[in-house]
Amino acid sequence: MNMYDLIMKKRNGGILSQAEIRYIVSGFTNGEIPDYQMSAFLMAVYFQKMNMEETVALTLAMADSGERLDLSAIEGIKVDKHSTGGVGDKTSLILGPMLASLGIPVAKMSGRGLGHTGGTIDKLESIEGFCTTLSGDRLIRQVNDIKIAIAGQTANLAPADKKIYELRNATGTVDNESLIASSIMSKKLASGADVIVLDVKTGSGAFMKTPEEAERLARCMVSIGDMAGRKTYAVITDMNEPLGNTVGNALEVQEAIAVLQGKGEARLTEVTMELASYMLIGGGGAATPEEAKRMLRETIDNGTALDKLAEWVNAQGGNPQWIYHPECFPKAKWEEAVYPAETGYLTACRTSEVGMASYLLGGGRQKKGDTIDPTVGIRLLKHLGDAVSADEPFAYLYGNDRQKLEEAKQRFIQAYTITQRPMRPSPVIQTVIAPQ
Amino acid sequence: MNMYDLIMKKRNGGILSQAEIRYIVSGFTNGEIPDYQMSAFLMAVYFQKMNMEETVALTLAMADSGERLDLSAIEGIKVDKHSTGGVGDKTSLILGPMLASLGIPVAKMSGRGLGHTGGTIDKLESIEGFCTTLSGDRLIRQVNDIKIAIAGQTANLAPADKKIYELRNATGTVDNESLIASSIMSKKLASGADVIVLDVKTGSGAFMKTPEEAERLARCMVSIGDMAGRKTYAVITDMNEPLGNTVGNALEVQEAIAVLQGKGEARLTEVTMELASYMLIGGGGAATPEEAKRMLRETIDNGTALDKLAEWVNAQGGNPQWIYHPECFPKAKWEEAVYPAETGYLTACRTSEVGMASYLLGGGRQKKGDTIDPTVGIRLLKHLGDAVSADEPFAYLYGNDRQKLEEAKQRFIQAYTITQRPMRPSPVIQTVIAPQ
Repeated sequence: MNMYDLIMKKRNGGILSQAEIRYIVSGFTNGEIPDYQMSAFLMAVYFQKMNMEETVALTLAMADSGERLDLSAIEGIKVDKHSTGGVGDKTSLILGPMLASLGIPVAKMSGRGLGHTGGTIDKLESIEGFCTTLSGDRLIRQVNDIKIAIAGQTANLAPADKKIYELRNATGTVDNESLIASSIMSKKLASGADVIVLDVKTGSGAFMKTPEEAERLARCMVSIGDMAGRKTYAVITDMNEPLGNTVGNALEVQEAIAVLQGKGEARLTEVTMELASYMLIGGGGAATPEEAKRMLRETIDNGTALDKLAEWVNAQGGNPQWIYHPECFPKAKWEEAVYPAETGYLTACRTSEVGMASYLLGGGRQKKGDTIDPTVGIRLLKHLGDAVSADEPFAYLYGNDRQKLEEAKQRFIQAYTITQRPMRPSPVIQTVIAPQ
Repeated sequence: MNMYDLIMKKRNGGILSQAEIRYIVSGFTNGEIPDYQMSAFLMAVYFQKMNMEETVALTLAMADSGERLDLSAIEGIKVDKHSTGGVGDKTSLILGPMLASLGIPVAKMSGRGLGHTGGTIDKLESIEGFCTTLSGDRLIRQVNDIKIAIAGQTANLAPADKKIYELRNATGTVDNESLIASSIMSKKLASGADVIVLDVKTGSGAFMKTPEEAERLARCMVSIGDMAGRKTYAVITDMNEPLGNTVGNALEVQEAIAVLQGKGEARLTEVTMELASYMLIGGGGAATPEEAKRMLRETIDNGTALDKLAEWVNAQGGNPQWIYHPECFPKAKWEEAVYPAETGYLTACRTSEVGMASYLLGGGRQKKGDTIDPTVGIRLLKHLGDAVSADEPFAYLYGNDRQKLEEAKQRFIQAYTITQRPMRPSPVIQTVIAPQ
């Protein structure tokens, strides 16, 4: 077997065997196959695609390329959630405590933000003292203890995916369904959860611009999960505007607290409930979405979810008082009211541009290792479909640098399209794909 | 401008501007654009193709990437010939002296053999003492003196092409019309000739398997030549079997001598005459192919071409007596008669396998720098369409190693298909494409 022949085979529309795909993944990971052959191969995959068997083989080969997290020491069915990435998405911070308070173990590895998308780890670190580097043992002990732990990825999970992703990112071979699905699922399989709930975003702030693309990707990932023996659900959710009212690390933690206090913005609450309900069902805690949602709602109403958040923050070294007194979170120096370009209705949002506005304020990073400012961000006062007036602010920007604030403001304003006719925004939950 | 965007543009079917193509070629040549981006780009080109403007821009950018040979010090119209590579192709050794004896200056840079194809430089070096490394000055002086010089490529001609070709060769991106055409033509443009005659091979021993592919490639190269201000002709010739009766370095030189002695095999003679006639026309020495062929035939009949070959050999340090006494060429230790697998008609030849048989005997090289044995090779007694008998040899193999000889013999025999019905071979000259 040699890489040249396999490039040619895929280029000419052939179907690769499991052994061939393993050869490629392990050869590239250990450095025997050079970057330039791999990138040519990936471009051939972009054009010729991979079928379901090839995609599963690719996923498993990548999942096997490093450590696999062994969560067997955690009692119960382990559930995990993954979002394909969006703006203002703080659902993990909300559904984690809800599920934990219902006894469902949540052991999650999360990422940091990059470009216009945020990351759960960055958000958690805006809580003073919160430690996101946990050893495997510590994570397992904490989950057995209080049912929840979220840590940054420390284990060497799916290193092949990491290496391939970096190459795809530099060579225009990111947007292929099989490559995206295998990238996400290889990490999830290596992370060891029994149940995986995928939040597949669609719209202007998502990788998948149309619901059709998102659904194809979702079905592909659910099939991979099924074939790999994991119960996998996918919920396709709207990302044509930021999720909830805030974008920015500390602001988003405070909004998560608000949801757990029963004061959540409608769409954010709906997405969180939907995702959490399938995690609860998958985890064996409920039989139907209705039952699950009733139980989840109760964790808010009776305060157990908020208490669980405080307990969790405490367990990872953060100050639990901040959860009950969000005014403790440090604030940016400047609060800038933003007025819409004209009076009318908000009819479209280039969501990734809103993410970029937050990034410009200092809330995001361009490359790994960049530091971020947890205090900066955006508070949205209006959503798609709402009437806005040129005389009234439709958002506030928070920043520590006047010039950046000005730049971000312009970018933010231009992210929105205002028309004179009202519009009805797309439903935030679009499709749910359950395992067979 | 950045490479990522240009990969995406081509991947998505866009047309690249001249400036964009120059950016890619110069960036890759000077090492700013990494291999892995270039190979992804080349694979995108494979799938999305390039139009004529892009192909010309690519050719010119590569031609400009290094030195351009300045042949202005040579009097007269400089003519050059290039073959896309075949088996048993010794036409340069024949037409060079013919044209030189008619006063047409032939200043040619030639290559060495690789894989199953031979190279003119290797063939010339089978003549004792023949020196193929000439400085530019020496080459020019010799051409002004005796009208002919052929040297190995020493100048840094089209280094971008060299670097890109090596990458294509490793990444399955060789067989694209624009990439092939620009690779050939960039070197030809940098080599400085005024008139270029292309021998585009088609068939089982050629890169272009069908006449249609060959014609498309030929038209593409003629257009590039025209746009670059060079008078360019393309002759599409059959490579469904080796050209002439011999394959192997010293054997081919001896066959070239035989042609100049008026004892040439029919198809070899026909191809040589056709190519030479357009070189003569392009060089201003004749008005029509008929006139040109008459003049060329005369250089054989009156012995001036053979004398010119001897003069040329002498000028480059070889022993001219070998030309008049080909029995001087050293011989391989073993001559092995090869019998066909059965009695019938030769109906098909996998020509590249014949080249590989010669390669196995030691007459070719796998990679640059490998040494070759000039004495080994193959003498064909039969051609496509001929009747063969299982009791009579249809070829002789020449080798210095019994085991290799046995291997090569099996490979050679299997290269031929024998059937019970006679067939008529395709004409050796298929199409001629003349400049507009």
